[in-house]
Amino acid sequence: MVNVLINGYGSIGKRVADAVAKQDDMKVIGVTKTKPDFEARMAVEKGYKLFAAIPERKHLFEEAGIPVEGTLDDIIEDADIVVDGAPKKIGKANLENVYKKHGVKAIIQGGEKAGDAQDSFNSLWSYNRCYGKDYIRLVSCNTTGLCRSMYAINSVADILKARIVLIRRAADPNDVKTGPVNAIVPNPVSVPSHHGPDVVSVIPELDGKIMTSAVIVPTTLMHMHSIMVETSGTNRDEIIDALAKTPRILTLKASEGFDSTAKIIEYARDLGRSRYDLNEIAVWEESVNVVDNEVYMMQAIHQESDVIPENVDCIRAMLEMESDNLKSIEKTNKAMGLIK
Amino acid sequence: MVNVLINGYGSIGKRVADAVAKQDDMKVIGVTKTKPDFEARMAVEKGYKLFAAIPERKHLFEEAGIPVEGTLDDIIEDADIVVDGAPKKIGKANLENVYKKHGVKAIIQGGEKAGDAQDSFNSLWSYNRCYGKDYIRLVSCNTTGLCRSMYAINSVADILKARIVLIRRAADPNDVKTGPVNAIVPNPVSVPSHHGPDVVSVIPELDGKIMTSAVIVPTTLMHMHSIMVETSGTNRDEIIDALAKTPRILTLKASEGFDSTAKIIEYARDLGRSRYDLNEIAVWEESVNVVDNEVYMMQAIHQESDVIPENVDCIRAMLEMESDNLKSIEKTNKAMGLIK
Repeated sequence: MVNVLINGYGSIGKRVADAVAKQDDMKVIGVTKTKPDFEARMAVEKGYKLFAAIPERKHLFEEAGIPVEGTLDDIIEDADIVVDGAPKKIGKANLENVYKKHGVKAIIQGGEKAGDAQDSFNSLWSYNRCYGKDYIRLVSCNTTGLCRSMYAINSVADILKARIVLIRRAADPNDVKTGPVNAIVPNPVSVPSHHGPDVVSVIPELDGKIMTSAVIVPTTLMHMHSIMVETSGTNRDEIIDALAKTPRILTLKASEGFDSTAKIIEYARDLGRSRYDLNEIAVWEESVNVVDNEVYMMQAIHQESDVIPENVDCIRAMLEMESDNLKSIEKTNKAMGLIK
Repeated sequence: MVNVLINGYGSIGKRVADAVAKQDDMKVIGVTKTKPDFEARMAVEKGYKLFAAIPERKHLFEEAGIPVEGTLDDIIEDADIVVDGAPKKIGKANLENVYKKHGVKAIIQGGEKAGDAQDSFNSLWSYNRCYGKDYIRLVSCNTTGLCRSMYAINSVADILKARIVLIRRAADPNDVKTGPVNAIVPNPVSVPSHHGPDVVSVIPELDGKIMTSAVIVPTTLMHMHSIMVETSGTNRDEIIDALAKTPRILTLKASEGFDSTAKIIEYARDLGRSRYDLNEIAVWEESVNVVDNEVYMMQAIHQESDVIPENVDCIRAMLEMESDNLKSIEKTNKAMGLIK
């Protein structure tokens, strides 16, 4: 039973905490917050030991009537690994200023850059590379999703050239400061976007073979990818079969009512998923097509949650708890109640 | 001076009426409406002669205090050409049941199918083919925009394979019944979408060389295209130059503030454009890139208005008023006050 500390109980952190708590080989020894908001109160109510991420703010929690056990410094030495859930750029600062100083292993999230850690993690592609490592970056939701679908395609054919257009959600559901409300925003406005190189940070063999462009649109539910992949040779049945065999990819049929990201989220709600998380990515079955050995498909990514089971697997790899990535995936999935 | 009748004074019809009225070689002899709404009242206030599109409803206009000159049947024989502005599928029915019966030339809009008319019109590509013809379909806003950018690319290199992802606006600004409000909708959910074949209806030489997929997103302002075109060989400077030389394409810089479709529409408003129409399509200059002879770019399409000047050119072609398409384009643009 290894000790996991969640530094930053926000969108990612609170989900990783719950996922870790469900595993039988790891436990959450504490979570941190920078401010005493409702998430902090709920962390305590859920039974997590709460620590002030910033020592000078400890009194704010006490004044707000939210009990804290201490500050980050009081707990970090007890951790075998820290999962960083801080906002973009803060994760890197935490790695340099806190985790390395304390000599504790750490996972930083996909908002940080590839070079900020020793390697970039995806359960299917780089589990072995990250095995036993100290500082690992867990790639973003979009990159995680692309790694899964590239894994499926790669399992039946060589990928010669992948072209992907990412249609990104504007803001998470709880974010009222971010737009657009009514516009399409090329982001970045230059082509290629950074997503291709980020996939390459996980899958070096795709270097020079992946081009991505991205826009942001006014929705909060999910990202979406339109994927076009030239291959050495395959057919639709092979791809459908490969998607079915790849962990954490669901193939959903528009003919069954999955006609948009909204219906996919409705499905997650009906499944009774906590926070309506869909940790698996969803591929629309009708969108899968192969013409002249080029694979076409469209997929949806729940931005808040597809990386969560990857964080659990990453802990197992870094702490050398399980050498077989597929066994870790299966164990994580089972504990979290994932479909596959 | 030729006589133009606008059958259906709606989103397209009212714009075509204003564009025709600005030309010195054609005039609007009447517009029709199916119901006495504010658009009907404004048509009369603007000086257009209003006719009831459906004879049985003439009394509704009179009861609403909106003067009508008569019904469609009273004016259609005076027309040299009818521009149909009816909703999808009604245009085809009008062509079969009304225009052909009266032996009057007619333009139907892009909601109809390629086979419904004699040919598909774009000012740059098929002006000569449509010259003197009787029944022509003017392709949709998206197809019109794609035809323009393919023209620019084709002017400097052979197009080997075009891949385009269309990110479509959910509804026009005045439409309160259509969604999505918060979702991304693959539409169609199958790949390829119909947009590729629709471009081929204008540009037969692209048959088998264009693949499109499309999604609908919650915005009302503009469509957007992420374009990837393998060519026989070109470079960025050539493409930028070709875009600059192609009529009705504006190249806008994100560095000047054009960071989204919303800013492009703000520009059209600041230009003083009627109804903030941007009849030109807009390409983001920073998005233009050429890697391994493959052209990448992103463009925005004002769905309500890019086809309007094309309707004017189409009238000139079908009535054999000007044999040179570029001269017609220039004449139309000048009268409408377009930038290029």
